Amino acid sequence: MQQEQNERTIPQSTRKAKLYGVGVGPGDPSLITLRAVEILQGMQVIAIPKSKMERESVAWEIAQAHCPSGVRILELEMPMTADKEILQAAWHQAAVKIKAELDLGHSVAFLTLGDPSLYSTYSYLLAILKSQLEPDQIETIPGITAMSAAAARVNWPLAIGDDPLIVLPGIEGLEEYEQYPNLVLMKVSRNLPDVLNHIQKTGAQAVLATRVSQTGEEIRLLSPGEVIEKVDYLSLVLYKKDRSEDLG
Amino acid sequence: MQQEQNERTIPQSTRKAKLYGVGVGPGDPSLITLRAVEILQGMQVIAIPKSKMERESVAWEIAQAHCPSGVRILELEMPMTADKEILQAAWHQAAVKIKAELDLGHSVAFLTLGDPSLYSTYSYLLAILKSQLEPDQIETIPGITAMSAAAARVNWPLAIGDDPLIVLPGIEGLEEYEQYPNLVLMKVSRNLPDVLNHIQKTGAQAVLATRVSQTGEEIRLLSPGEVIEKVDYLSLVLYKKDRSEDLG
Repeated sequence: MQQEQNERTIPQSTRKAKLYGVGVGPGDPSLITLRAVEILQGMQVIAIPKSKMERESVAWEIAQAHCPSGVRILELEMPMTADKEILQAAWHQAAVKIKAELDLGHSVAFLTLGDPSLYSTYSYLLAILKSQLEPDQIETIPGITAMSAAAARVNWPLAIGDDPLIVLPGIEGLEEYEQYPNLVLMKVSRNLPDVLNHIQKTGAQAVLATRVSQTGEEIRLLSPGEVIEKVDYLSLVLYKKDRSEDLG
Repeated sequence: MQQEQNERTIPQSTRKAKLYGVGVGPGDPSLITLRAVEILQGMQVIAIPKSKMERESVAWEIAQAHCPSGVRILELEMPMTADKEILQAAWHQAAVKIKAELDLGHSVAFLTLGDPSLYSTYSYLLAILKSQLEPDQIETIPGITAMSAAAARVNWPLAIGDDPLIVLPGIEGLEEYEQYPNLVLMKVSRNLPDVLNHIQKTGAQAVLATRVSQTGEEIRLLSPGEVIEKVDYLSLVLYKKDRSEDLG
């Protein structure tokens, strides 16, 4: 059980600074947890990856409503590249910045849209910082994922009974998963035509969910043979094969 | 965006009764969302499956703190059986009970520990009730899953990069998934020895998480060759193959 006291109630000098990985949920400000709100209310430093992505500003908008007015933003440079070496360097630099704050006695909340454990930059930072911090200096607060929010919006199950649930961050090798009933395809903007072809071939029912629970949300059932050229990068597909009965 | 007003602010006579599928999170009362709290605060009827399982009483304990004092409990009989026909009959009977409340103008919140879209009785009820209700009479509020909470507790990622995440509700046919790096094994109490054998064989790192974020939480790293005879039924395993680097 997470029973720590709110940061604000403990004098700065007696507490150990902590790194909080805070999941703020999928976008709807009401889909944040009480625990995340409690943590944010006591924060002095909020770490946000700075990139061209809008994802971060959405996370900050949700968090800001709960942060003290004097909160300080620690921007972490995250280059938009797939080059693992450049990314590694950026994560290490970000970790140094966070560690420096902690060493000064400042607790830091690193924000993640959705859940910090699922395809998040936070995981890369943790892998670096774990060896440099005491175990009780790290607390991760889980968040509602975009896939849970998408399933809720269309009143579909993600999975039921003995069915596996398979979450695919890339859409390469989609054929490999043809026999599985429940797929969640993340980041479909990278290759939507392949996804649409796959859906037509397998006859699956599928929903394209863009900016789930955020301003500009669009959710639509995909029809077989549908052609969509371009889609917002904050999009995912819920894919159901031979599961009409479950969908009601 | 979920912009509906709180039930309490709209006179009973003018609003349409709704079915809310409310995810209350994994067990820690602070891991419920603001939206779930808001819904519960306006509820007159709370539907809870009545079984031998403790799961339901944990969900009710979390919800109760937010419900009005005069809230009424609608118990839904759920037989403890794997017999699909008996279960189907029970789900249909539960759906009739909920529909009767809605027809009387009473909104109903059906509670789910974790997320209502993931391996939940709520999905079976929805499949039945969807055809009987207007689309705007159903609202599902996503919840924090036990797997997200478990990952957060040990500061592990569920998955990163281009890795798929595979969630298996049963542990049959585990060998089929041998090549995948990230598995979540639910309901491992049904066949823990097989799970432990599999972990030893594949040399994966694994965590056994029991009653995550609840009273009586137990979380432990599994060692190769470990023998555990029996485990609480609210247990899951996070399984990582060849991912030491990601775990920090």
